[in-house]
Order: sequence, then structure tokens, then C-alpha cells
Amino acid sequence: MQESVPGIVIGRLPVYLRALNILQQEGKEVTSSQELGKRLGISSAQIRKDLSHFGEFGKQGTGYSITFLQESLREILNVNRLWPIALVGFGDLGNALVHYRGFPAKGFFIQAVFDNDPGKVGDKINDLTIQASSEMERTITQHNIKIAILAVPIEAAQSVAEKLVKIGIKAILNYAPITLALPPNIQIQNIDPVVHLQQMTYYL
Amino acid sequence: MQESVPGIVIGRLPVYLRALNILQQEGKEVTSSQELGKRLGISSAQIRKDLSHFGEFGKQGTGYSITFLQESLREILNVNRLWPIALVGFGDLGNALVHYRGFPAKGFFIQAVFDNDPGKVGDKINDLTIQASSEMERTITQHNIKIAILAVPIEAAQSVAEKLVKIGIKAILNYAPITLALPPNIQIQNIDPVVHLQQMTYYL
Repeated sequence: MQESVPGIVIGRLPVYLRALNILQQEGKEVTSSQELGKRLGISSAQIRKDLSHFGEFGKQGTGYSITFLQESLREILNVNRLWPIALVGFGDLGNALVHYRGFPAKGFFIQAVFDNDPGKVGDKINDLTIQASSEMERTITQHNIKIAILAVPIEAAQSVAEKLVKIGIKAILNYAPITLALPPNIQIQNIDPVVHLQQMTYYL
Repeated sequence: MQESVPGIVIGRLPVYLRALNILQQEGKEVTSSQELGKRLGISSAQIRKDLSHFGEFGKQGTGYSITFLQESLREILNVNRLWPIALVGFGDLGNALVHYRGFPAKGFFIQAVFDNDPGKVGDKINDLTIQASSEMERTITQHNIKIAILAVPIEAAQSVAEKLVKIGIKAILNYAPITLALPPNIQIQNIDPVVHLQQMTYYL
């Protein structure tokens, strides 16, 4: 039945999970839709409605057990495991992503890094070695990688994305400022700071 | 009347503008809601409806003049000018943002960079000099900066954001993985790769 949950609801679940992690770090064990709503600038009714798609998580009057709701959301989002990620493109952004320490606690780790610059191939960052793009197929198949982060120049984005899909990638987090055209069964999310900045200047 | 346009519509306008820029780079002068829709995976009816909030941009049967629609969207989004940005936090991500060359063509430039690490203050990147956080108020006031990009550690994000608002910042692009609590008149947009990745793993 979860196929029928609107995408906008799914989009809020990671934000709820993030807020729960912070509440837990603050030493709290129980929370409420009111407290979560206040933290997130979302109405408590919206939070209760979103969660009701997936079951009953709190008792009337006693609120939510943070640990239980965390575990439930992790299960719903399939991040009660560690997903290997292929990072494609090791420019400044790729470098920032490799050094980002927030992934493992959230269900992800960068398994492999690819770049087509011969001057970078073979370089070591932490315990990763930058591989040539020609190694993508072998490595992605070998490690059964389903998720890629695309951090290549705009000119290369579409063709690299198509290659990744052919190799077996099912989800792409795209940092190139272009809308990728890929088969409908491929999950795509986009991060473009300009898109966010221009949304804000509308209101300024 | 533009205040009544739903935020989700505003959110799509920068994506339309981005697609128009690419079409123009491809040498095209005219496009249609069908062509745009196909590029963006959005229905042509949705695009026409979104644009109709702001006027008439195409003639029945002849489509949109790309230049005219670009100019119109730039005007609507207030990016027919260059907005100075204060980048706060010069870690790996801050470094990637400073080196990102996509801002000026889209209406933005990084005017000032701040970090509280004395080892970084005074360093030069391109024509920018990293300034101490204590310089924020003076610099942001002097250059009348209204937009900040927040690329500081999660622990510092809320307090730095509050300080920025006090100084006169009206819009914050927040890269820290936390929901900021700020006055309702402040525009906030968030970029957290984990939130995007977890939305995709739901479907995997």
C-alpha cells in the first residue's frame, strides 16, 4: 500500500528523522507532534497525518517514543542498513562530499569514486582510491551499487547518467544544473543551489 | 497579486529558467510548453498554468520566444540583477561553493567569505579574502548583503543564522543538516544530500 503515499509526504519523512536524531542527541526520549511541528515549522496535524500513512506510532496523550519512531522511519525509508554509493566526479564538490562525515549515521557510505582526469586517478582520499571512469561498470557491478551521486560538469551529466543506468544504478542524486532525461523507473533527485537562491529572491 | 502564487509554483520557475538557458545554448530561439515539459518531465498543461500566474508569454500556435520568457522569468524572480552573497563557513563545502562558476550568470556572486578559524582568516581565494566572523556585521552592512549561504557545522548553524538575521540578512541557503528556527519574514532554503538520498531509498 505504501506505493500510494504522495511523494511530498515521503519527502518530509527524512526531515522528521533528522529532527528525531537531534532530539535524541539532546537527551530526550519522548516527543510529540506538537514539539516536532514547532521545531520544523510544520503543523502538528500535518505530521500526524503524514505518519498515519504508515501506522500508529504514538499513544494518545503520551506522545512518541523517539527510539521507536526513529527505527520505524528508518525501516520505512529503507535506511536501517548501509547503502554503498558511487560518487562520479571528483572536483571541488566531489571532494567536499567525500569528506562529509554525515553519511554513515544516515544509511550511506561512499564505496567508490570515479573521475576521468588521469591526473586524479589513483589518488587516495581517506581509504578510497579515485578510479578511472572505465572502471565504473566493473566496480558498480562488483559491489552491487544502486545509488550514484553525479558531480560532473553539466556537459557530461546526461551521458554519464545514461551510462550509470545501463550499469545498474537505480537512483541518482544529481548536482549538475540540468534536468536529466532517464527512464521513469530511475529515481532522480537534484541539488542546485541556484534553484534555491532564485526561489528566495522572488520574495525579496 | 504575486503574493498569492503558491510556493510550489515559484519553486518550478528557476527550473524553467534553467531549461530555457540550455535551449538557448543549443541555438534555439523559440520553444513550447510541450518541448519544455518533455525536457523537464512536467506536463505542458502544468507549465502553461504556472506561467499564467504571471501573464501571457506565448501566442497560440507559435510558442514562446526563449529570450522574452527568460527575461520575464528573471524579472519575476528578481534575478535581472546581481545579488551579493555572504558565504559563512569555509570548509570543504565552502571551498566548493567559492569555486563554483555558475553563480554570476544566474544572478548571484559571492561578495564575502567568513570563517572563525584563525588559520584560514586572511587566506585569499580568487579575489576574495577570508574574513573573521567578527567582521560579518561591518561587511554585510557595508555591501548591503541580504542573502547568506550557511556552510558551518551543525552545532553552530542556529546561532550563526540568528546573528546573520540580526545583521540584516533576509534569505539563508542552509547547508547544515538542521531545521533553522528563524522569524517568519526570513526566507530559508535547505540543502541536505541525506534528505534527498533517503527519499530515493524509500522507492528502492
